Amino acid sequence: MSTIQFSVAELAERFALEFKGDGARLIDGVGTLAGAGPSQLSFLANSKYAAQLASTHAGVVVLGADALASCPTSALIAHDPYVTYARIAALFERLPAAAQGVHPSAVIAPGARVSATASVGPCCVIEDGAIVEDGAVLGPHCIIGSECIVGAQSRLVARVTLVTRVTLGKRVLVHPGAVIGSDGFGLAFDRDHWVKLPQLGGVRIGDDCEVGANTTIDRGALDDTVLEEDVRLDNQIQIAHNVYIGAHTAMAGCAAVAGSAKIGRYCMIGGNAGVLGHLEVADRVTITAKSLVTHSIREAGEYSSGVPLQENRQWRRNAARFKHLDEYARRLSALEKDNNDD
Amino acid sequence: MSTIQFSVAELAERFALEFKGDGARLIDGVGTLAGAGPSQLSFLANSKYAAQLASTHAGVVVLGADALASCPTSALIAHDPYVTYARIAALFERLPAAAQGVHPSAVIAPGARVSATASVGPCCVIEDGAIVEDGAVLGPHCIIGSECIVGAQSRLVARVTLVTRVTLGKRVLVHPGAVIGSDGFGLAFDRDHWVKLPQLGGVRIGDDCEVGANTTIDRGALDDTVLEEDVRLDNQIQIAHNVYIGAHTAMAGCAAVAGSAKIGRYCMIGGNAGVLGHLEVADRVTITAKSLVTHSIREAGEYSSGVPLQENRQWRRNAARFKHLDEYARRLSALEKDNNDD
Amino acid sequence: MSTIQFSVAELAERFALEFKGDGARLIDGVGTLAGAGPSQLSFLANSKYAAQLASTHAGVVVLGADALASCPTSALIAHDPYVTYARIAALFERLPAAAQGVHPSAVIAPGARVSATASVGPCCVIEDGAIVEDGAVLGPHCIIGSECIVGAQSRLVARVTLVTRVTLGKRVLVHPGAVIGSDGFGLAFDRDHWVKLPQLGGVRIGDDCEVGANTTIDRGALDDTVLEEDVRLDNQIQIAHNVYIGAHTAMAGCAAVAGSAKIGRYCMIGGNAGVLGHLEVADRVTITAKSLVTHSIREAGEYSSGVPLQENRQWRRNAARFKHLDEYARRLSALEKDNNDD
Repeated sequence: MSTIQFSVAELAERFALEFKGDGARLIDGVGTLAGAGPSQLSFLANSKYAAQLASTHAGVVVLGADALASCPTSALIAHDPYVTYARIAALFERLPAAAQGVHPSAVIAPGARVSATASVGPCCVIEDGAIVEDGAVLGPHCIIGSECIVGAQSRLVARVTLVTRVTLGKRVLVHPGAVIGSDGFGLAFDRDHWVKLPQLGGVRIGDDCEVGANTTIDRGALDDTVLEEDVRLDNQIQIAHNVYIGAHTAMAGCAAVAGSAKIGRYCMIGGNAGVLGHLEVADRVTITAKSLVTHSIREAGEYSSGVPLQENRQWRRNAARFKHLDEYARRLSALEKDNNDD
Repeated sequence: MSTIQFSVAELAERFALEFKGDGARLIDGVGTLAGAGPSQLSFLANSKYAAQLASTHAGVVVLGADALASCPTSALIAHDPYVTYARIAALFERLPAAAQGVHPSAVIAPGARVSATASVGPCCVIEDGAIVEDGAVLGPHCIIGSECIVGAQSRLVARVTLVTRVTLGKRVLVHPGAVIGSDGFGLAFDRDHWVKLPQLGGVRIGDDCEVGANTTIDRGALDDTVLEEDVRLDNQIQIAHNVYIGAHTAMAGCAAVAGSAKIGRYCMIGGNAGVLGHLEVADRVTITAKSLVTHSIREAGEYSSGVPLQENRQWRRNAARFKHLDEYARRLSALEKDNNDD
Repeated sequence: MSTIQFSVAELAERFALEFKGDGARLIDGVGTLAGAGPSQLSFLANSKYAAQLASTHAGVVVLGADALASCPTSALIAHDPYVTYARIAALFERLPAAAQGVHPSAVIAPGARVSATASVGPCCVIEDGAIVEDGAVLGPHCIIGSECIVGAQSRLVARVTLVTRVTLGKRVLVHPGAVIGSDGFGLAFDRDHWVKLPQLGGVRIGDDCEVGANTTIDRGALDDTVLEEDVRLDNQIQIAHNVYIGAHTAMAGCAAVAGSAKIGRYCMIGGNAGVLGHLEVADRVTITAKSLVTHSIREAGEYSSGVPLQENRQWRRNAARFKHLDEYARRLSALEKDNNDD
């Protein structure tokens, strides 16, 4: 594999940054402050790592102007070092080039439409009525069901299943094991057994969304399940039928949203947090890890539930008391009344 | 795709319902009260949506007799409008017809037995000793391991893996990414390392069960893991080895049941709820979302754990106090004693 | 399938155990105390099952010397009956023999290297630069991405995806649906939208590790995500980028570890427990089910969070009081002050 190289001065020019130090130094990769070598670029975005700056062997460090004085090597000065680092690092990513065209082992139904500039990997299955647009890349083992559309430049890394009536926008990135468009969990109880409600809607996913490994997104019962643009879902997330997620919202691993909940824009949902069905969450709400949203949230802000971790014996004592909290509150009030009556 | 159409009078007759209004109106689909048009059927099953009835443009609405007076259009009167709607809506579901027979890309071991009326999709793998019964449908990329049986009329939507010794009853529906019959998590600790316990049992799944996308059901260590009939599992559920789930129990997304737990019939397990190993849960128990069942439950009823969601700063203050709850209870008792001693 | 048989005396000799009773009795399988028949071996490792010993019909029971007197049949006396049982039971496991060589439906890139003694199942895809070592077994539908190594004697049961830069040690066992080496969830927020951080690291998994069904392990952003040897992960676990897990640690189903957390050796992480990012957990720490680790743990021991399950109406009363816990604590202190001032 040929090496990608940029001089510090080239990077400064390309990203419109000021630099200090050796503009001619060649950079061929990125690394942590502790691990980067003289041909690598590193970054300081979190003051927690400031102590590592003094001893770094990186060839150049992306940092804020305030950290420049402590930098023992060349520096690229950025307003937001983390964002700038992200953009520079992308230059050094080596994605295996996807071969244009359809792998001979793929199975394409006669009624499917695959762009000539798309790439379809080994053992993919594309069903009747599916559309794969220009420049889309399907890694091995993807299944594109009927009435599904993979938007231009989208990338399904490998083994992604779009069941039916799923529309992906442009530049959507889906990781292995994700299932999009599976049946919503709709059941009616008929005296002594369940009757399934057919799931007649679809899923619409906006441009620039990302869907993590083994994440599941059910299609709607009647209307569609919707992710607006630039929604970012980590691994093993569950999105139930008819959920609506606003643009730029990010959800960490193992979060779950129950049916028909509506999440605003620019929200941050922590790992393994949950949102109950039919609730609404306003824009710019942060939910901390493992919290359960049990009522609609009307105002931006940070919300939490749960109790702190403790050593097990201490925790047991406190947890046992929780079962009597209502009684304690009453007894406390009674005591106060007694004291006031005295 | 040809349109399916029924007149209101035909629907009334087929489902033994009384109707009011225009029996000749043709219905070709279903929709929400807010979204349905004049050729669509809607329903009112939840009084929360009663306000939408007056302004609906649906051609006909399934509702209870008590709502008839407020209905601006034709009506089908049902004892249980939700169940009736579910049955009618099924008429309008367009499932892609599965081609009978085995797709040429499927790999069928010589010792496998596949019914001539079954459908086996692209890239399926059926191993020696597996049986696929009449009318069963395997979508693309299903793997049926040795000694597995797919019962008649069962449907594995796509990319389902039955590992070994898995028996599915009739009309079982399994969604993409589900893994059934994987190794139970059995380990013995031998001084300084783990020794694996072979998982020699299987999985038995009754008629009319449903298994959600990316749900996992491990096979038993010695005896089988069992789901009785009409058990309904949503997505991303984890069922450990030797769990036993009674008929008609439904579990919402991301719930988990640890090894050898026994869940009764007609239970409802909420999203991301958990049941610890070796416990028993009686019939008709409801567990609310994210609760953890830490002891056996002997009586029907609704059970919960967890603390309410709050704005983060308030929550922090309360959560910090939780660590001292036992101390507070003692101090409260001491105060009461003091007061009584006075 | 031919029957595997051992006499009780042969088992005693092979595992260096003392036996009592009929050494000539032939054993062809294993079972529970309640279920085993006269040609089967059972075990007593948990005093909870001691009552079942008297009525067992097993041909021989593995037990501790203290239980010998109550054993109605032949016995194999073990220091650790559970470990010994695990080793004996392994003799009776019937794994389908993997055919050596590459199935004709597998797709092997010209730049991949597959040992002649490895087994590659139907529809596997092995990309350029991947290596499959001696005796490794890939079941159907495995995808081995570029720069991935499957160590000698490792077994990928079926439908396992190694995305890129993943190294599995020797004798690693991976269950269906697992995704290893997917993108870590790294995002930088640039004023009004997300910018993705390229994930340039890999995953290193030590010898004798086990990875459960539908478990996901992301590759590192810069350095690698690491599992030392003999780490045991159950199903549906999420391991984020740059996590480091010490040797012999076991995690139960649906546990999750956020980015850059470092877990010690010989830890036990309960089902659906979580560890927040960048924390450190010492060796020999046990976390109980559904607990959330919110701060680093420096000492071995058992840790918990959560509140106990209660009948819903009682729980509601207590949970509502939790929202005022800080206020109650203040009021309690005020009362105490009042009383002292009296």
